[in-house]
Amino acid sequence: MDTRPIGIFDSGVGGLTVYKEIRRLLPHEDLIYFGDTARVPYGGKSVKVIQKYSSEIARFLEIQGVKLLVVACNTASALALNRLKSDCSVPVIGVIDPGVRAAVRAANGGKIGVIGTRGTINSEAYQSRIIRLRSDIEVLARPCPLLVPIVEENIIDSEIARLAIHMYLQEFKSASVSSLILACTHYPLLKKAISDFFGGGVALIDSAEETAFEVKEMLKARRIQGDENHHGKDEFYVSDCPESFSEIGEAFLGRSMNSGCFLHSWQSDD
Amino acid sequence: MDTRPIGIFDSGVGGLTVYKEIRRLLPHEDLIYFGDTARVPYGGKSVKVIQKYSSEIARFLEIQGVKLLVVACNTASALALNRLKSDCSVPVIGVIDPGVRAAVRAANGGKIGVIGTRGTINSEAYQSRIIRLRSDIEVLARPCPLLVPIVEENIIDSEIARLAIHMYLQEFKSASVSSLILACTHYPLLKKAISDFFGGGVALIDSAEETAFEVKEMLKARRIQGDENHHGKDEFYVSDCPESFSEIGEAFLGRSMNSGCFLHSWQSDD
Repeated sequence: MDTRPIGIFDSGVGGLTVYKEIRRLLPHEDLIYFGDTARVPYGGKSVKVIQKYSSEIARFLEIQGVKLLVVACNTASALALNRLKSDCSVPVIGVIDPGVRAAVRAANGGKIGVIGTRGTINSEAYQSRIIRLRSDIEVLARPCPLLVPIVEENIIDSEIARLAIHMYLQEFKSASVSSLILACTHYPLLKKAISDFFGGGVALIDSAEETAFEVKEMLKARRIQGDENHHGKDEFYVSDCPESFSEIGEAFLGRSMNSGCFLHSWQSDD
Repeated sequence: MDTRPIGIFDSGVGGLTVYKEIRRLLPHEDLIYFGDTARVPYGGKSVKVIQKYSSEIARFLEIQGVKLLVVACNTASALALNRLKSDCSVPVIGVIDPGVRAAVRAANGGKIGVIGTRGTINSEAYQSRIIRLRSDIEVLARPCPLLVPIVEENIIDSEIARLAIHMYLQEFKSASVSSLILACTHYPLLKKAISDFFGGGVALIDSAEETAFEVKEMLKARRIQGDENHHGKDEFYVSDCPESFSEIGEAFLGRSMNSGCFLHSWQSDD
C-alpha cells in the first residue's frame, strides 16, 4: 500500500478530462493536479521551451511527494516525455501511448486518424508511434485549431461546431478511417458531435479514458496502490488565475471544485 | 533628427498589423519588432504576469536603443501601459487610446462597440477610457475568442467566419452602434467580413492604423523624427520559434520578411 498522491499536469485546464477519468477509475487515490495557466498553451512552442516548462512542473510535483506522474498534456507528452522519464525518480505516464495502443487495437488493420493541436500533430509523435507498433497501418493526421475555442466558448452543439468538424474531418471520412484518436484534452467534449458526423462506424479513441486505464495498471504492476478504504482527496494548483481556472474547471468536471485552487508562481514570474 | 529605431512589441505575431501600418506611414524609420512567442497569448493571464512580461520586453528594447516604444498588444496596453510609462526612459504608446479617440470621434455621440480577447474586454480598459472621454456615450463590449483562430486558419471568407461574426456581432447590430473598435491585432484581417455583416453604416476602428498616426504625431511633437532620406530597416525578434513566426508573419505583412527573424531567449527560458 502506498498512500502518496498521483501527480497530473497539463498546460492549463484541458488536462482535467484526464483527471476526471482517473478520479472516476481510482476514487480512493489522492490526486494533485497542476495547470500551467501562466504559460498556456504549449501547442506551437518549441521542444526546448516545452521541455523546460515540463521539467519545472515535474520537480514541483516530486517535491509534493507524488508516487506517479501523469503528463495529461498532449504537446508535453509528445515533446518532453522521454526527458521526464529519465529525470524523474517516479514512473511517468503520458497520454500518447495509451491512445495509440487503443487506436491500433480498435482499427484492426484499418486506417487510423489523429487530430490535435498544431504542436501535437507537427511533432509526429502519434504518427511515429503508430508506425512503430504496426508499420503496415496507414495514418492520416491534421491539426484542428478551431476546436479548442469552440469547446471553451461552450458552443459544442452549434452550426459553427458542425461546420468546423466537417471542414476538419471530411478527409478522414472520405478515407474511411477505422479509428480516430482525439489527441487533445479538449476534444472528448466534442465526442458526440464527432460521432454524429461519422454516423458511427469509426472508433473514437479518448486518450483521457485510455490513460486512466494505464494509470490503474501501472499502480497494480508496481504495487503502489493506495488504501481502498480511503476517500481520495484532490488538490489543484495553477501558475496563474486560480479563480477563472475554478470556473472553467467546473464546466470540465461537471461538478463543483470544493477544494478550491492554489496559486504557485514560478520563480521567474515573481 | 534622431536615427534611433522605434521599438514595437506584441505577445506574438498579431502586432505585425500595427508594425505594417507604422512601416507604411513612416518608411524612413528603423523599426525593431519583438514577439513574445514563448509565452503567447497574453489574453487570459493576470495583471501581475502581463506587467512582468511587458517590463522584460521593454527593457530588452531599451537596451537596443529605441527612441519610442509601441505596445502593439491590446492586453499589454490594457494592463501594463501605466507601469511601462513610469518605468521607461522613452515615450510609450499603446494601442488603446488612439483607437478610443478615433471611435469617439466617429461615433459622434452614438453608441460604441468594442470587440477583443477575453483579457482585453474583461480588463474594461476600452470601456473605462471611452466613458472618461465622453461620459454620456453608451458602450457595448464582448470577447470574441473564435476570431483569432479563424484568422490564423486563414478562413476569413468562410461560412464559419460569417456565422461566428453573426454570433458575436448581432447584438451590436441590434443596438445600432455607430462605431466598432476592433480591439485585437488580428481583427483588421476580418474587416471586410465584418463590414459586409453590418452592410455599412458602422465605422470600423482599426487600432493599428490609429496607433500609427499617433506614432507619427509623437515623433513630430518630440522632434525625434529620423532622416527622411533614409530607407528604414527592419529587425524582428521572437522568444520562440523564429521559423514559424516568419511563415505566419509573411501572411500578415503580405510580403516576404527578407531580414529574417532572430531568437531572443528569456533568461528564465534557457
